[in-house]
Amino acid sequence: MSIENNKAIHLRQRPEGIPSEEHFELVRTPLAKIKKGEVLVKNLWMSVDPYMRGRMTEQKSYVEPFAVGEVLDGGAIGEVIESDNPAFAVGSKVAHMNGWREYFVSNGSDLQPLPDMGVPVQAFLGVLGMPGMTAYTGLLNIGELKEDDHVFVSAASGAVGSIVCQIAKLKGCRVVGSVGSDAKAHYLMSELGVDAVVNYKTTDNLRSDIIKHCPNGIDVYFENVGGEHFEALLDVMNDHGRIALCGMIDQYNATAPAPGPANLAQILVKRLKVQGFIVTDHWDSYPAFVQEMAQWIQAEQVSWKETVYQGIEEAPEAFIGLFSGKNTGKMLVKLT
Amino acid sequence: MSIENNKAIHLRQRPEGIPSEEHFELVRTPLAKIKKGEVLVKNLWMSVDPYMRGRMTEQKSYVEPFAVGEVLDGGAIGEVIESDNPAFAVGSKVAHMNGWREYFVSNGSDLQPLPDMGVPVQAFLGVLGMPGMTAYTGLLNIGELKEDDHVFVSAASGAVGSIVCQIAKLKGCRVVGSVGSDAKAHYLMSELGVDAVVNYKTTDNLRSDIIKHCPNGIDVYFENVGGEHFEALLDVMNDHGRIALCGMIDQYNATAPAPGPANLAQILVKRLKVQGFIVTDHWDSYPAFVQEMAQWIQAEQVSWKETVYQGIEEAPEAFIGLFSGKNTGKMLVKLT
Repeated sequence: MSIENNKAIHLRQRPEGIPSEEHFELVRTPLAKIKKGEVLVKNLWMSVDPYMRGRMTEQKSYVEPFAVGEVLDGGAIGEVIESDNPAFAVGSKVAHMNGWREYFVSNGSDLQPLPDMGVPVQAFLGVLGMPGMTAYTGLLNIGELKEDDHVFVSAASGAVGSIVCQIAKLKGCRVVGSVGSDAKAHYLMSELGVDAVVNYKTTDNLRSDIIKHCPNGIDVYFENVGGEHFEALLDVMNDHGRIALCGMIDQYNATAPAPGPANLAQILVKRLKVQGFIVTDHWDSYPAFVQEMAQWIQAEQVSWKETVYQGIEEAPEAFIGLFSGKNTGKMLVKLT
Repeated sequence: MSIENNKAIHLRQRPEGIPSEEHFELVRTPLAKIKKGEVLVKNLWMSVDPYMRGRMTEQKSYVEPFAVGEVLDGGAIGEVIESDNPAFAVGSKVAHMNGWREYFVSNGSDLQPLPDMGVPVQAFLGVLGMPGMTAYTGLLNIGELKEDDHVFVSAASGAVGSIVCQIAKLKGCRVVGSVGSDAKAHYLMSELGVDAVVNYKTTDNLRSDIIKHCPNGIDVYFENVGGEHFEALLDVMNDHGRIALCGMIDQYNATAPAPGPANLAQILVKRLKVQGFIVTDHWDSYPAFVQEMAQWIQAEQVSWKETVYQGIEEAPEAFIGLFSGKNTGKMLVKLT
C-alpha cells in the first residue's frame, strides 16, 4: 500500500507563552512502503497532554525537547493495516508514541498490542493509559493514601484529576477538587461523588474557599496546577501530609519565572512530604494498575469523559485548549 | 536545702526580627523545698537552639509558644543535689527540658538518667542528644542516604550540620558544606574531612559557587537555612534527589514573608522528594542512634566542637549569637 499524503503536525517554532496555531505546521509527505518485518499503522486516536508543552521549549527536561521543523510525537492508538511481521496481524490495535501523524511504518519494537478489555480503544490513552496510571501511582505510591484521608485534587475534572477523585473515593476518602467552571463542578459532584468543589475562576479568595471546604485540613494533595493553589494548600495541609506533585500547568506557559510561595516553612512546621513524580518512572506497576482499574471499570465504579477533536488538522487546537480548560476528562483527537 | 535566689530567664516580650537582650529578663525567685518523692536539681549545662526562636512568636507551631512573663524552657543537663526519690540518688546526672534556670524541683517524671558513656555530660545536649539525633535521622531516614551519594549540608559547622557531615563521610559519601566564615571552612576541611566548602558570606554568587563545588550534582541536601540556599540547591539536585528539610534559619527572624524560589518546578522535573521533619517525631529511633553514635565516638570517628557561654546571665547572648553564626558546633551555656 502506498501512502502519498501522510499528514503530520510539525513544530514550526518554539512558543513563548501560550502556544497558538502559528507554532504548528501541517506537513504532507509520502510514506515509504513497508519492508520485511515491518508493519504499516494507521492512527485512530492521538493524545494531547499538558506535559508536551515542556517539550516545546529548548530546555532539556525529563524528556528530550521536540525538534523545530520535525514531527511531534506522543501517545496514540493505531490499527495495523498492512503487515510483514508475524507478531502483528492486520486489524490488530496497538498503543505507541507515534502520535501527531496519520500513518507510520514500524518494525514492531515500539508497538504495544492492546488487550481486549471490552472498552473503547481510546481508553488506553486515558483511564487505562498514562493519565489513569499517573492518577493511581501518584495517589497511592507518592501520596501514600490511607483510608479516611482528606484529599484535595487540583484540575480535578481533567484526564488525571477525574481519575484521582474516583480512586480516592473508592479508597474511602473525603475528596475536594478545584475546577474552572460550574459545569465541571457539577460533573464532579453529581457523577463522581466528590464531596466539595472550588471554582478557582469565580472565587474571590482561593485560599479562604479551600479552607471553607476542607474544615479538617488535607492529608493528601494531588497537585496538577502549582502557583496560587500550591501556596494555599501549604496552609491547609495537616501535619505529616503528602503532596504528590504531578504537574504545574499554571507555569508551563510562563514567559518569566514567577516567585514561589512565601510559606514554604509550612513544609518544615507540618513535616510535609512534597514529592515530584513522572509516571514513566513507575511503569513497573502498570500491570497491577491495569488489574485493579479493570475491575473498577467492569464494576462501573470508575467512569470517564472525553473531549474529542476531529482530524489531525485539529490537533494543535486540541492541545492549545488544554491551557484554557477546554477539556473535561481526557482531551483526544480522533483521526478517522 | 533552701534556694533563696533561683535565677531564671523569662521572656519579657516577643521579639520581632532578630531578638536582643531587651526581650529577656533575669528573674530571681525563691524555690520551695522538695516534698516527698521529689528531687532538687541543679543545672550544669543548658542548650540554646535555633528552633526556640519559633516558640518566641505567638503563632502555634509544632511546639507551644513560650508565654510572655514566664520562664523559658529547653534542653539541659542537671545534677540531683537533694533527693526524696529512690530512683534518683544525690549526685546523679539527668537530662531534661527545664533549661533557662539554675535550679528546679521535680518528681522525677521529666528526668532522664544519663548513661555513663565516658563523654562529658554536655555531649547529651549535642552529639548524643537532640542535634546528633536530628543529623542521624534526617540524613538516614528522611534523606535516605546511600553509599556514594553526593551530599550538601547548609550551616555545616553548626551543632547539627557538623554531625551530618561526619555521618555522611562515614557512610562513604562525598560531602560539600556551606558556612559563614573561613575559620569554619577550615574546620570542616581539616578536621571533619569534608570534600569542599562554600563560604556563603564571601561568595559573589552562591549558586555558581555551589555548582562549581558539586560537579556531579547533589543526591541528598540536608537543609538548615532555606532562602537563597534552597533555591540554588533545587537547581543543583540530581534526578530523584532528597531534600531533608531540618531548618530554615534564614527565615526565623523575618518580619515579613519573603517570596519563595521561582524554580519549584525542579521538584517535578527532577522527581525530588522535599520532606520536613522534626526530631521528636522520630524519638523511637533514639536507642539505635545512640548505639551507632557511641561506637563512632569510641572509635574517634566522630568529633565535635562546643561554643560555651558562662553563667545563666549570658544565656540570652548565647541564643542571640546563633543567628549571627557565633557558634562553631554546639552552642551551650555552662551554669556552674
